[in-house]
Amino acid sequence: MSNSFGSRFRFTIFGQSHAPAIGVTIEGLPAGFVPDMEKLGAFLARRAPGSGKYTTTRKEADVPEFVSGLVDGHTCGAPVTAIIRNTNTRSGDYENLIRVPRPGHADFAAAVKYGPNRDVAGGGQFSGRLTAPLCIAGGLALQLLEEEGISVTGRILSIGGETEPAAIEKLLADVKEKGDSVGGVIQCVCEGVPAGVGEPMFGGVENRIAQAVFAIPAVKGVEFGAGFQAAAMRGSQNNDPFYFDELGVVRTRTNNHGGALGGITSGMPVVFRAAFKPTPSIAMEQDSVDLTAHENVKLSVQGRHDPCIVLRAVPCVEAAAAAAIYDLLLEGRY
Amino acid sequence: MSNSFGSRFRFTIFGQSHAPAIGVTIEGLPAGFVPDMEKLGAFLARRAPGSGKYTTTRKEADVPEFVSGLVDGHTCGAPVTAIIRNTNTRSGDYENLIRVPRPGHADFAAAVKYGPNRDVAGGGQFSGRLTAPLCIAGGLALQLLEEEGISVTGRILSIGGETEPAAIEKLLADVKEKGDSVGGVIQCVCEGVPAGVGEPMFGGVENRIAQAVFAIPAVKGVEFGAGFQAAAMRGSQNNDPFYFDELGVVRTRTNNHGGALGGITSGMPVVFRAAFKPTPSIAMEQDSVDLTAHENVKLSVQGRHDPCIVLRAVPCVEAAAAAAIYDLLLEGRY
Amino acid sequence: MSNSFGSRFRFTIFGQSHAPAIGVTIEGLPAGFVPDMEKLGAFLARRAPGSGKYTTTRKEADVPEFVSGLVDGHTCGAPVTAIIRNTNTRSGDYENLIRVPRPGHADFAAAVKYGPNRDVAGGGQFSGRLTAPLCIAGGLALQLLEEEGISVTGRILSIGGETEPAAIEKLLADVKEKGDSVGGVIQCVCEGVPAGVGEPMFGGVENRIAQAVFAIPAVKGVEFGAGFQAAAMRGSQNNDPFYFDELGVVRTRTNNHGGALGGITSGMPVVFRAAFKPTPSIAMEQDSVDLTAHENVKLSVQGRHDPCIVLRAVPCVEAAAAAAIYDLLLEGRY
Amino acid sequence: MSNSFGSRFRFTIFGQSHAPAIGVTIEGLPAGFVPDMEKLGAFLARRAPGSGKYTTTRKEADVPEFVSGLVDGHTCGAPVTAIIRNTNTRSGDYENLIRVPRPGHADFAAAVKYGPNRDVAGGGQFSGRLTAPLCIAGGLALQLLEEEGISVTGRILSIGGETEPAAIEKLLADVKEKGDSVGGVIQCVCEGVPAGVGEPMFGGVENRIAQAVFAIPAVKGVEFGAGFQAAAMRGSQNNDPFYFDELGVVRTRTNNHGGALGGITSGMPVVFRAAFKPTPSIAMEQDSVDLTAHENVKLSVQGRHDPCIVLRAVPCVEAAAAAAIYDLLLEGRY
Repeated sequence: MSNSFGSRFRFTIFGQSHAPAIGVTIEGLPAGFVPDMEKLGAFLARRAPGSGKYTTTRKEADVPEFVSGLVDGHTCGAPVTAIIRNTNTRSGDYENLIRVPRPGHADFAAAVKYGPNRDVAGGGQFSGRLTAPLCIAGGLALQLLEEEGISVTGRILSIGGETEPAAIEKLLADVKEKGDSVGGVIQCVCEGVPAGVGEPMFGGVENRIAQAVFAIPAVKGVEFGAGFQAAAMRGSQNNDPFYFDELGVVRTRTNNHGGALGGITSGMPVVFRAAFKPTPSIAMEQDSVDLTAHENVKLSVQGRHDPCIVLRAVPCVEAAAAAAIYDLLLEGRY
Repeated sequence: MSNSFGSRFRFTIFGQSHAPAIGVTIEGLPAGFVPDMEKLGAFLARRAPGSGKYTTTRKEADVPEFVSGLVDGHTCGAPVTAIIRNTNTRSGDYENLIRVPRPGHADFAAAVKYGPNRDVAGGGQFSGRLTAPLCIAGGLALQLLEEEGISVTGRILSIGGETEPAAIEKLLADVKEKGDSVGGVIQCVCEGVPAGVGEPMFGGVENRIAQAVFAIPAVKGVEFGAGFQAAAMRGSQNNDPFYFDELGVVRTRTNNHGGALGGITSGMPVVFRAAFKPTPSIAMEQDSVDLTAHENVKLSVQGRHDPCIVLRAVPCVEAAAAAAIYDLLLEGRY
Repeated sequence: MSNSFGSRFRFTIFGQSHAPAIGVTIEGLPAGFVPDMEKLGAFLARRAPGSGKYTTTRKEADVPEFVSGLVDGHTCGAPVTAIIRNTNTRSGDYENLIRVPRPGHADFAAAVKYGPNRDVAGGGQFSGRLTAPLCIAGGLALQLLEEEGISVTGRILSIGGETEPAAIEKLLADVKEKGDSVGGVIQCVCEGVPAGVGEPMFGGVENRIAQAVFAIPAVKGVEFGAGFQAAAMRGSQNNDPFYFDELGVVRTRTNNHGGALGGITSGMPVVFRAAFKPTPSIAMEQDSVDLTAHENVKLSVQGRHDPCIVLRAVPCVEAAAAAAIYDLLLEGRY
Repeated sequence: MSNSFGSRFRFTIFGQSHAPAIGVTIEGLPAGFVPDMEKLGAFLARRAPGSGKYTTTRKEADVPEFVSGLVDGHTCGAPVTAIIRNTNTRSGDYENLIRVPRPGHADFAAAVKYGPNRDVAGGGQFSGRLTAPLCIAGGLALQLLEEEGISVTGRILSIGGETEPAAIEKLLADVKEKGDSVGGVIQCVCEGVPAGVGEPMFGGVENRIAQAVFAIPAVKGVEFGAGFQAAAMRGSQNNDPFYFDELGVVRTRTNNHGGALGGITSGMPVVFRAAFKPTPSIAMEQDSVDLTAHENVKLSVQGRHDPCIVLRAVPCVEAAAAAAIYDLLLEGRY
């Protein structure tokens, strides 16, 4: 039971891929905040399907309707709820999905956890579609952070191990043609976060960002600053020396710590990377099991799929980070 | 404010390095559980200082006193509180620590967050000593998991980038002599976790383990299964094919997913790795700032320090994982 | 920030009186539960306005739309969200409401807390309309409790101090004519709750039911068993003697404890009473203040109001109790 | 599982009557707060046994040891833990307590909930002794509230239905002689609480105070302002008219609302009453059951007992209210 995140900026995500709607309820938005709906729409559009050559062709307008919490366009102190109608649903036959779990998907785990009553259509509550409400909550957090001079910016570091645009383009064309898929790494930089944000132990910046980012389907690793590279370094290399900059502000000459020391921000940019596995839905034939017939079978996943989910995941990573940071910012205030 | 972890097996850690005591209060232990105190002592001893050539010589008996929750050696349903007295404290002069933050430590971030009232002695609440109460909570969780046929086993994968014992030994001798330090990678394997454990979105196995493991000082990255490697793979490689084994149990031929799909366990071993940065306390001279005099200064950290914290961190990683898994196990039960 | 209630059966209420919608998201419903929508509709109808001579004539269909969490009429393990559209809204002029707080209403307190951005229309988030989503959550809890042989039944004990139907009818006619209002007392009896339900200290049956019931607007007191009468009794009178009944079940001969001892159920019916103040909206002229003009003024509240909210509040009390008890029932299970 | 209370000022109480210790861990105390230990000691002394003619003669120094969170007498931002050693324990023979539950006590409910492993000695975790750590947390909250100009003052309104000192004295002498007991009503007034404190729905001042106060053993009812009397009033009587006082502050002419409207403070004193049942431990013979022999038996409770717990409960009520109000005060700050 953890469709909720946050303590002071707290939101609860609901919905399934093919339910009437998906959405989010946000508590903790200050009264009087005027969400920039155009900006939010543009933000949501970055994760929307159908926006590129290598993304699924499922069409979803994904325009949120704000059903509570706003009066004349500004927040009023009541929880803000936004819903997005699922318009393109339940057309298929899900018999096969019930019987044969797709490798790399939550299908089998969900079958064990929820039994025959689970929602299999489109991945149910485990669908990547649930990142849309995450982006609504995070998109609003981004706007509130911006008012505090804080920016959160993600970018793709690599796709399928490739870092050069030409090589990436070639790789994507190749996997698309073969009915295969690739993963990638997204780096996110949060600038302007003041020093002193974060709570001790389980409430550190790293704990909370990691908890949020792992909610994005396909994320298999999160690292801060030098991350796994730090494990191969010596203390004298990895320790970031402090100094006073020309404005008298304490800074570090390097940022191997990724902006967090002891879980608390240092004033340096918070930098982290998230590793995405390849989209598990591939057209290529795979081995799986028939849970009803109790036998090993072959499976080829049909339908609309992204050969590389990473292309659409950048705003999701930004949203998760923004939500975690804004929540901690509020938590640190008295 | 996050010295607490868990929802059904919930514990709160308290104390500072040089306070009268450190400790933990655990809610959610079933009544009638008989902790094996000898086993717990042996588990705590694995993280205790003074147990190896390359660990700090600070002597701490670290024997917990259980002040509540037990009757005649078994739990009674009331919260269990254990405290460990800090016997070897407050001998030093902390004036310098207040003025000059140690690179790589929480000193500066804590100074901004808590101001002049923070506890600087021995790192205060940010000290690695606080992993002792984590190991008490996690050590009890391990015993309860064992009753369910679940084991959680960590091991060092690499130290300072080296994986061979001889090379590691050589490296440690080298950094100790130079007053430097190294980090490393710990891998943890949780076997016997049944399929279906974990909650959706922010409550997945990965979210919760990551949240717990990042509470261990010096952890800068957490990855599951193939982790960051998965980002360079193709779906056809990374997807783990399902099959029925000879006992009719659904398994996967590979375990790139690290035992978690959609945040829910698959029945395969839960496998993750934690990257530790090098111990930030090093004898070598470093650049820092004098926060009082407001000038750049040189600093050489004196005192008792581990050249490689990873050697003592294995039980901490096991404890964090065990706590997260046991908590989710209970959360999934109705 | 507390639009949420519960730990295992957890729901979050959203909406304002004149927002596009009000609603609730419920986490923790077991997968495979088939809500009886007809029964739920009948339950909601009991609190709906326009159903009696002495209730407001505001017309609201109050038919919830379930936008998530259901598949083919049964729960699937994902959060269940239901919304109710507000169809009869924003017709008025709220200028006066912004300036002149209504005595006995949340208007003034909300003005201080949320400032000029608050939602004043129809009482905003403080409207009694928000008990509709409470009744959705509680109505589902009631159905789940029924499956366990537990019933939760409220009834009106008194209205304006009168306990006889004829006297109550006369009183209501009188206050309606005068543009005044009356309060009353509702008693709720929860039968079939097994012994051993409830958590220690702040999680007792009384703590949780009280926390839930005080969320119903106009409730000013909650008492269990003999309640305030117990304060005038002697121990020898108030203590309920235990005995084995003919089936060998431990029972008490009286039920002054109202089914809860130490916050834990005894197996006897859980009995409590909630005191409701009179509806604060009255047509009679009252003294208030003009917050803009900063002067004392006279106010007469116009519009559609119940002269006695108690008549519609019985299902709300049942809903609050059912939610609290079902949540504790789950919390006690391992 | 609810030994914890609060969201921003959050504390967890642990211990049993005859465990080595009882205590509390408090998160959320601002760094730099200097608890007045003498004042805290005086506050704790008001609930300590052995301080009056009609209180138990059990001797307990009840001097808390602060084992974490303080440096040189001030808070440092880390959780504050205080323990009180139980010095006067485990002398008795508890065989009878295991078999025969005392009427009015938690014994039977605890037996069902925790089974044979429960701690029966002195009432275990259900003992009134656990109000000592509540008073530590609440006593510190009181000091912090005082810094904000807020006072929380309880007083006994009635004992066994009597309100006059002479009649009360006579009643107490009578019940003591007979081996009986009496209850009473405590009223608590919180002055200086600014308007606008409290959260909507389940987080209102009334919800939170009630949740806290019901944690005090023997409390069976909580009412605010006119409380149950309001249920017999008319709106025109019960509504408190607003006016501007000579300083231009909005006040109400009466305080039937008890300082809370819609769960949010109005700026008027927060006034509530708690009903205490008579001490369940009485020397007079009572009917009970032998859970082992499975037969109805007679019971006479021996030992050290207060004929009227109300005499010592005033600081407990103040502590509960102070904790709830201080927590909400922090929660409302951004």
